[in-house]
Amino acid sequence: MIRTESKSANDIPEVVILRLPLYMRVLAQLQEENVEVVSSKDLGERLQVTPAQIRKDLSYFGRFGKQGRGYNVAYLHKELKSVLGLDRTWNTGVIGIGRLGRAIISYPGFRPQGFNVVAAFDSDPRQVGTTVGDLKVRDTKELEESLKELDIEIAIVAVPSAQSQQVVDRLVACGIKAILNYAPTQAHVPADVRVRNIDPVLALQTMTYHLKSLATRRGDDPERLD
Amino acid sequence: MIRTESKSANDIPEVVILRLPLYMRVLAQLQEENVEVVSSKDLGERLQVTPAQIRKDLSYFGRFGKQGRGYNVAYLHKELKSVLGLDRTWNTGVIGIGRLGRAIISYPGFRPQGFNVVAAFDSDPRQVGTTVGDLKVRDTKELEESLKELDIEIAIVAVPSAQSQQVVDRLVACGIKAILNYAPTQAHVPADVRVRNIDPVLALQTMTYHLKSLATRRGDDPERLD
Repeated sequence: MIRTESKSANDIPEVVILRLPLYMRVLAQLQEENVEVVSSKDLGERLQVTPAQIRKDLSYFGRFGKQGRGYNVAYLHKELKSVLGLDRTWNTGVIGIGRLGRAIISYPGFRPQGFNVVAAFDSDPRQVGTTVGDLKVRDTKELEESLKELDIEIAIVAVPSAQSQQVVDRLVACGIKAILNYAPTQAHVPADVRVRNIDPVLALQTMTYHLKSLATRRGDDPERLD
Repeated sequence: MIRTESKSANDIPEVVILRLPLYMRVLAQLQEENVEVVSSKDLGERLQVTPAQIRKDLSYFGRFGKQGRGYNVAYLHKELKSVLGLDRTWNTGVIGIGRLGRAIISYPGFRPQGFNVVAAFDSDPRQVGTTVGDLKVRDTKELEESLKELDIEIAIVAVPSAQSQQVVDRLVACGIKAILNYAPTQAHVPADVRVRNIDPVLALQTMTYHLKSLATRRGDDPERLD
């Protein structure tokens, strides 16, 4: 959420990369609605960004529309999918098989989008060897071999906060360059590694200010000074 | 992720509000490490933002540090907690009690941070009346009364995508102003309602571009044109 100013590989701003999956999602919805062509205005309305922003974002990747004609929905969707590397499947492994790790493994949303959870790891001997879904929990001691063997390029970290940096360091040492971190901590990684955090508490904490402000304006805040 | 330019109640940029919980988290860590005073430089390093950014962000809320002396960690933490409305507890209710909803209800991270899940709702008669943790699943028909009765100000939506906008509309009609949305869709809400999305697939989709770029630069992309 913070490092939006950093540049990605080809000097495309990271913030643009962050928006592209949202574009793809809206384009997929439009396809389902049998919409064939969409203007940057309509696309902007659905995405709550300006048409100028959309044109600028897309200009990083080539010419997708003709002036005044709008974008071909199917073509743009296919192109963005390819730009983002989503025209293939990616193998992922989950590290930390507690309640959260188990919920992640059984989450039905990954596979239809091309993300296959192919391995589960835990350091607790009581967990190793048990099964979750159709996966047998592996010992984190075997992390490096397993990642290679199973062609895993994305790691999903679901260990307690106290262990997360250590696990992230281990993954980085194994050559992992993309980490989805469910631990409520900001992991430190080298510049060539991407980390995204899934953190519902942080998300909740960004909304209470708004609730508090509304209450203050309505005048039902007992601490309000008039 | 997109609407970072919108202004919150008192013209504090939304993007600043989004950063404050991260500040709080780092300050809590510093307290655990018995650090009493922190400079904007050190704080910036931990947060990977510039010291100037930190001084600017904090300046919206008052004077927290003395020139050249750094910030008192405990004081700043306490003040930010109060600014964000996190010096109290908030009641939340989960709508949609499938596998995901159940995992959310049993997630141990909410309560220690002051977010209490006090109600579970589903529209499926087979779910209504069953128990999850120590909650009895309520019928969504009783949504409005239950939200009032239990003083719920934040809703957590865990229904399938196809139903999410409808559920969000219903919540908005009931006066809910803050929604944590786990459905992989962008919900449309009036300007005075905040929605945060928890979407691991979207997060994964923002990292594959990076992986693809690295592979291309290493030259192991079969599609590479030399």
